[in-house]
Amino acid sequence: MSYAAFQTEIGRINDILCSVNLLSWDARTVMPHGGVDSRGRQIATLTSLARDLATGDTLRRAMDEARHDATPDALRALDLAAAEIATLTRIPPALIGELASLKTAAHAAWAEARAANDFATYAPLLTRMIAMQREIGQALGDNPYDALIGLYEPGMTQARLAVLFGELKAALVPLIEKATAAAQPRTDFLTRSYPIPVQKAFALKIAARMGYDLNRGRLDDTVHPFEISFTRNDVRITSRFRETWLPGGMFALWHEAGHGMYEQGVDPAYTRSIFATDLANLYAVGGASFGMHESQSRLWENRVGRSRSFWELHFPELQAHFPDQLSDVTAGEFWAAVNQVRPDFIRVEADELTYDLHIILRCEIEAALMSGDLAVRDLPAVWAEKMRAYLGREVPNDTLGVLQDVHWSQGYVGSFPTYTLGNIMSSQVFKAAQAQPAIAAGLAEGDYAPLHGWLQHEIYAHGRGASPAQTLQKVAQGPLDTAPYIADLTRKVADLTG
Amino acid sequence: MSYAAFQTEIGRINDILCSVNLLSWDARTVMPHGGVDSRGRQIATLTSLARDLATGDTLRRAMDEARHDATPDALRALDLAAAEIATLTRIPPALIGELASLKTAAHAAWAEARAANDFATYAPLLTRMIAMQREIGQALGDNPYDALIGLYEPGMTQARLAVLFGELKAALVPLIEKATAAAQPRTDFLTRSYPIPVQKAFALKIAARMGYDLNRGRLDDTVHPFEISFTRNDVRITSRFRETWLPGGMFALWHEAGHGMYEQGVDPAYTRSIFATDLANLYAVGGASFGMHESQSRLWENRVGRSRSFWELHFPELQAHFPDQLSDVTAGEFWAAVNQVRPDFIRVEADELTYDLHIILRCEIEAALMSGDLAVRDLPAVWAEKMRAYLGREVPNDTLGVLQDVHWSQGYVGSFPTYTLGNIMSSQVFKAAQAQPAIAAGLAEGDYAPLHGWLQHEIYAHGRGASPAQTLQKVAQGPLDTAPYIADLTRKVADLTG
Repeated sequence: MSYAAFQTEIGRINDILCSVNLLSWDARTVMPHGGVDSRGRQIATLTSLARDLATGDTLRRAMDEARHDATPDALRALDLAAAEIATLTRIPPALIGELASLKTAAHAAWAEARAANDFATYAPLLTRMIAMQREIGQALGDNPYDALIGLYEPGMTQARLAVLFGELKAALVPLIEKATAAAQPRTDFLTRSYPIPVQKAFALKIAARMGYDLNRGRLDDTVHPFEISFTRNDVRITSRFRETWLPGGMFALWHEAGHGMYEQGVDPAYTRSIFATDLANLYAVGGASFGMHESQSRLWENRVGRSRSFWELHFPELQAHFPDQLSDVTAGEFWAAVNQVRPDFIRVEADELTYDLHIILRCEIEAALMSGDLAVRDLPAVWAEKMRAYLGREVPNDTLGVLQDVHWSQGYVGSFPTYTLGNIMSSQVFKAAQAQPAIAAGLAEGDYAPLHGWLQHEIYAHGRGASPAQTLQKVAQGPLDTAPYIADLTRKVADLTG
Repeated sequence: MSYAAFQTEIGRINDILCSVNLLSWDARTVMPHGGVDSRGRQIATLTSLARDLATGDTLRRAMDEARHDATPDALRALDLAAAEIATLTRIPPALIGELASLKTAAHAAWAEARAANDFATYAPLLTRMIAMQREIGQALGDNPYDALIGLYEPGMTQARLAVLFGELKAALVPLIEKATAAAQPRTDFLTRSYPIPVQKAFALKIAARMGYDLNRGRLDDTVHPFEISFTRNDVRITSRFRETWLPGGMFALWHEAGHGMYEQGVDPAYTRSIFATDLANLYAVGGASFGMHESQSRLWENRVGRSRSFWELHFPELQAHFPDQLSDVTAGEFWAAVNQVRPDFIRVEADELTYDLHIILRCEIEAALMSGDLAVRDLPAVWAEKMRAYLGREVPNDTLGVLQDVHWSQGYVGSFPTYTLGNIMSSQVFKAAQAQPAIAAGLAEGDYAPLHGWLQHEIYAHGRGASPAQTLQKVAQGPLDTAPYIADLTRKVADLTG
């Protein structure tokens, strides 16, 4: 009876947090400009209500009583809830409302600053956001940045990241040198004129074939692509297509569709449950962690979508959509072009080899912001300096630099490392998948049902019911390991340059 | 201090109810089909939370204490809140959650049944909804239908409606006879092919000139046009355009823009206050009543938009949008065509003369449903019978009959009378407006700022801070009166037939 009361209360919290997700989706896609302030208030009120229920007596009493005669499954749910509530309780309640409200204002300021290349107008809001994040980090642990990272990737620390990042850098730098020193592929055709509706139709058709269910989803346009869900039954993605840059839109769409399939695949029995509710972050989401989530988006975007066999299969279809623009291009040329290694400014459009250097740069900056060694006003200069050092590029303006990412405006400090963790795990998971003969056979024919079905069964279905470490152990028979990822990239560079 | 606590609590309730409005807007415009059930849960949870806060101890205590040293303005707010909470408290709390949940399911079933002309699939949900409404009516008063009408138009009763409807019928029937017996205007050009984007651009440009602010609003497409707000800063309208029926889309858009301007015009100081929150209906809305709201939509749609002077001014502009389609039409012909009196099936596309007969039909059916004299399964037959009696038409199918309106699926039983009340008041208000020389001069030139400014000052700004009767007394120096409306219609028929 009290376990039912626990489930009811979590269901109500999930309903509120799904509503917050919708308020946020709307603010980022279709909301008229005048609605910014009111929307911030609404999100703040709902988030505070969810916080009150999550830390309230009704839930606590139901959990205490439910422990007495709990089944193992029920105990797992109660333990997860208890751990997340303990984290949530450490964050001062006033901060939660303020943060929710600031997110909406900061997002609007960021979008305007980005469009106008005007960091100064955004800086005051970002300064408030950074201060708030440091306060939250301090409330959660001795090392604020570690504490924030742990919100997104349970158990992860700067120290452990340093090891992983070190392994990656050691492998990536010579690979990038090799790739950039070799003869470069043709890329002239990527910047021809490709009408956006046709791009979208092609990309969406492939996404549906991968397994993204449009009956429980939809696609909209935004400045910064994202995925968000309001239960597994309504999982939306957004994208940004450009007429004269063909790879941008489609790969971003498959990336977000990868996130979307994860959310759509959570066990229906987990709908509105703790296994689809992140109480520590007060966020309705089904994934085990941000890193595990990213592993699924990167798997479809890169492991599948940037593979040679993928384009050997699908290039004729793309060509049929753009017969004039692609008449003088071969599948192999197209594959090489969308894999060109080219240190550049924008993270979301970076090739696989340079991508993680963008992340390492951001993590170093976040660490310095959290330790207080770096002030927001100095961000553009430090960004430029690190871009020079790691990617050898001179940032021409802040829109192509520090203003390119939405994350800090949304209070996501400590989430960037999870992108690289996602890359690492995507190779571990994909390696395990390919060992299944039916999956390998399917991939060779453009039949993604076996891969999607396996991911659904092994990862998606479990929602937050297994930790990322447990999931990885079960799927890839081991802990986090950079070797399969480095092997994938090494093979790719050999293939590109050989 | 406790008045501030009252305001804070009402603000939180308003935030929740604005969020419910967004969940509902989304469900009716862009939500993927799979989201229906989850959305119903989310709306139910949020509505119940709002109900709990509205009837909770925190608010009651704050209100009790605030009375001690309240200013007259504060007292007005407290009295309004107290009266609405008293009504709300009479409705069993369980019903509120069930009703909210049923709305989403019933809307989806209605939309499908309407598209498939299949009343039977919708009947079970409608039966539940009607039973629920009767239960609510019984909880609110001795006469359930009177009680429900009072939710939308405070103080209105069936008995009073019978008098108003009687006056109208006595005037309308001979006017309709006169208009339909006379030579009919040309209407051949209304069904030519008018590309929808061009229709929309024209209609929206005029709406903006009337005063609908797109920086705090947006337009989307739906099966059944509506207006909804999430504070005065985000007030959205929807429309339904058809390529081969020119008047349909534009008049519906101006109608919804009329509602929208009302909401956008509420005093900014009333944002998130009791004067923008209907606690009895748990609905975030700024209008004094449903009838007063409708008077503002009908004023812009009919008093302004269907006047001869309006088309003498704007027809050349419309012609410029559709030079081929309208090259052989004069402004006068266009005006006569969009005012043709023609008994037909669809209420929202009815001319001004037959419109109220559609309403009277619905009110009689609602009264019979509430008294138990009519069962849902018999609705199609009774609908057909009344259409024959009042409008002399044989309903060809349920899509053009009982399935045409969204209202009952949304639990709005008792709201139809407010459409006719709105018509009556629109003429009372417009008569007072035209007595202002600046407004009359503006209308003659297509400058709507004086009219919009006067409505803003006299009606919009006050939100729910004045009752409809108070507002009408102040603006039109009298109570509800059918005479100005009958005079307007009589003049129009004379003009059309003379």
